[in-house]
Amino acid sequence: MKSALELIKTEIRELYPYKVDETCCAVKLDANENPYPLPERLRAEVDKSLSEVSLNRYPDPYARELKGLISRWLAVPEDFLMLGNGSDELIQSVLIATSWGSPSIVIPSPTFSMYKITGLAVGHRVLEVPLDDSFDIDPSAIIETCRREKAKVIFLSTPNNPTGNRYSDEKVLEVIRESQALVVVDEAYGDFSGKSLIPRLNDHMNLIVLRTLSKIGMAGLRVGIMAANPALTSELDKARLPYNINSLSQAAASVILNNMDVIDGQIDTIAEERDNVFEALRRMDGVTPYPSDANFILFKVRDADKTHRGLIDNGILVKNLNRPGRLENCMRVTIGNPDENHAFLVAMKKLLSQEGK
Amino acid sequence: MKSALELIKTEIRELYPYKVDETCCAVKLDANENPYPLPERLRAEVDKSLSEVSLNRYPDPYARELKGLISRWLAVPEDFLMLGNGSDELIQSVLIATSWGSPSIVIPSPTFSMYKITGLAVGHRVLEVPLDDSFDIDPSAIIETCRREKAKVIFLSTPNNPTGNRYSDEKVLEVIRESQALVVVDEAYGDFSGKSLIPRLNDHMNLIVLRTLSKIGMAGLRVGIMAANPALTSELDKARLPYNINSLSQAAASVILNNMDVIDGQIDTIAEERDNVFEALRRMDGVTPYPSDANFILFKVRDADKTHRGLIDNGILVKNLNRPGRLENCMRVTIGNPDENHAFLVAMKKLLSQEGK
Repeated sequence: MKSALELIKTEIRELYPYKVDETCCAVKLDANENPYPLPERLRAEVDKSLSEVSLNRYPDPYARELKGLISRWLAVPEDFLMLGNGSDELIQSVLIATSWGSPSIVIPSPTFSMYKITGLAVGHRVLEVPLDDSFDIDPSAIIETCRREKAKVIFLSTPNNPTGNRYSDEKVLEVIRESQALVVVDEAYGDFSGKSLIPRLNDHMNLIVLRTLSKIGMAGLRVGIMAANPALTSELDKARLPYNINSLSQAAASVILNNMDVIDGQIDTIAEERDNVFEALRRMDGVTPYPSDANFILFKVRDADKTHRGLIDNGILVKNLNRPGRLENCMRVTIGNPDENHAFLVAMKKLLSQEGK
Repeated sequence: MKSALELIKTEIRELYPYKVDETCCAVKLDANENPYPLPERLRAEVDKSLSEVSLNRYPDPYARELKGLISRWLAVPEDFLMLGNGSDELIQSVLIATSWGSPSIVIPSPTFSMYKITGLAVGHRVLEVPLDDSFDIDPSAIIETCRREKAKVIFLSTPNNPTGNRYSDEKVLEVIRESQALVVVDEAYGDFSGKSLIPRLNDHMNLIVLRTLSKIGMAGLRVGIMAANPALTSELDKARLPYNINSLSQAAASVILNNMDVIDGQIDTIAEERDNVFEALRRMDGVTPYPSDANFILFKVRDADKTHRGLIDNGILVKNLNRPGRLENCMRVTIGNPDENHAFLVAMKKLLSQEGK
């Protein structure tokens, strides 16, 4: 018989496996996580709720309690919402639902890698349109590409990973109005910018907003959030796997969403620290940080590979993004707690002072 | 602009939403769950492990501890394994990876509904081949259909849901040898049959075996297991979403897999109770139970809709499968604990005695 591997589509066989950096460092500033654990009292409440979960029973397939709390938190009606096993699953759902004809998507470049990886895996052509000099989108180029290629989906991560900036709202809205495609506005880092396009959902049937609990302290739970008009949500929901949010994550997230003042405080602290770290990096000779609305900062150095290794030698892990093009010698540092940020800045100064020698 | 809904593929727009029976009953025998909670000591150990999970950090993307324990449990090397957010996600992964050209799958009928739903959603044509009179597969018809239509995947659930029987191993192996397709042998209920095709993986590059923790006491965790040759697994793994198993489920499942004697005991009790319930149903006039290797029994009554309602009135929920064809007037009862099984049998007798009146 022919090889079983030949039954797998070429696009997947040509993918490189997704690799997560496995380096262990005392200070972990590589994954855009919230550095703060929950206060003891709240964690005890989470643990109590977890201990009451019936592990042998299937989860609530509609995650009703959690969805109700998210509806209240985001001020969006429940029938606008669909939850995913992380935003990754929601991105995949949109891609599956639109993979017909000769499907394609448009994404800016550089942006979050999973749009392209999952797009290719599901069977889309992936059309990349470069960001402009200030890492904002070029709406005319995106709209033109989208119309010419009859692309079905545009992914706009705002604030954008890894550049950190929010795209201009006017430009995003122009793309939503003119592109004739579904526009997924991924606000994974929206909580750190204080802005959202969720209030615009009623104006645009083709707008899908993604949020997540991952960046604000619940990365371990894998809860992604999609908000869109109910007519669209109910179609996408048909292809959702019925029990996609497990019982433990539903329970833990529900307790935390009932205590969002705690998370809001952590977000404020992270945003303040971000501005401090940005200022400190800006004052360093040979370092160019880019303005950020997220919980991380993109910055450029003279030799990113060397700086990355140097930081690891000092027990600090950041993400090395160095590759030819816009991200040459660029790195991404997640905002940690004040001690972690201090350790990072001290190590950076030390490495820079050694550069001349 | 054209309607945003027109961007969604027809196959999804034509799907009916997956509905989970929401009826609340004191005795829940509709979802093929293990009725037994964990013993207190083990549950305390699970809770302790959950309380130590860093909720703010991403899960181990490779779920190494859990995968190691599953490897030991199933006696299959780790590089044969891929884990999913339930088997549902693994079924979807196989379907995505093979959705190229003019893709199609072959499934027996009746069988587990998600093969067809997810197959259609991902873009496959779904070719159904009826089971024979004893609910076994017809290998010649499956192989012929598969070759004629160049189908890429065959799904064989064995023991089959909802019929309960294992297909003949010889017939399954014939399909694996002759079909020129990937053959997914879904052993979701394999633990209750004591048999598995996992030892045959080394002989067949196109064989994929699915297992799950859902039926043996961990439905709330959503952990599905795929085992296949490493060359195939590594290709399918490329399209896996990187953090698909959340941290809490990894932690809880790991503790339980270190204590499989507890689960083994529960499985033995369920299998014994299954044989008792089967005998009791067989002795009832107007009831035909079908032999089962699973943790449920398919049975036929004179009027399934009426019996289903009658059972609900008595506080007992089973699954009503009544529809024209092979499952006309058929229902499926999950094996519960002895009290639940007793309550079910008593209610059945009562309903049958009322039938004549």
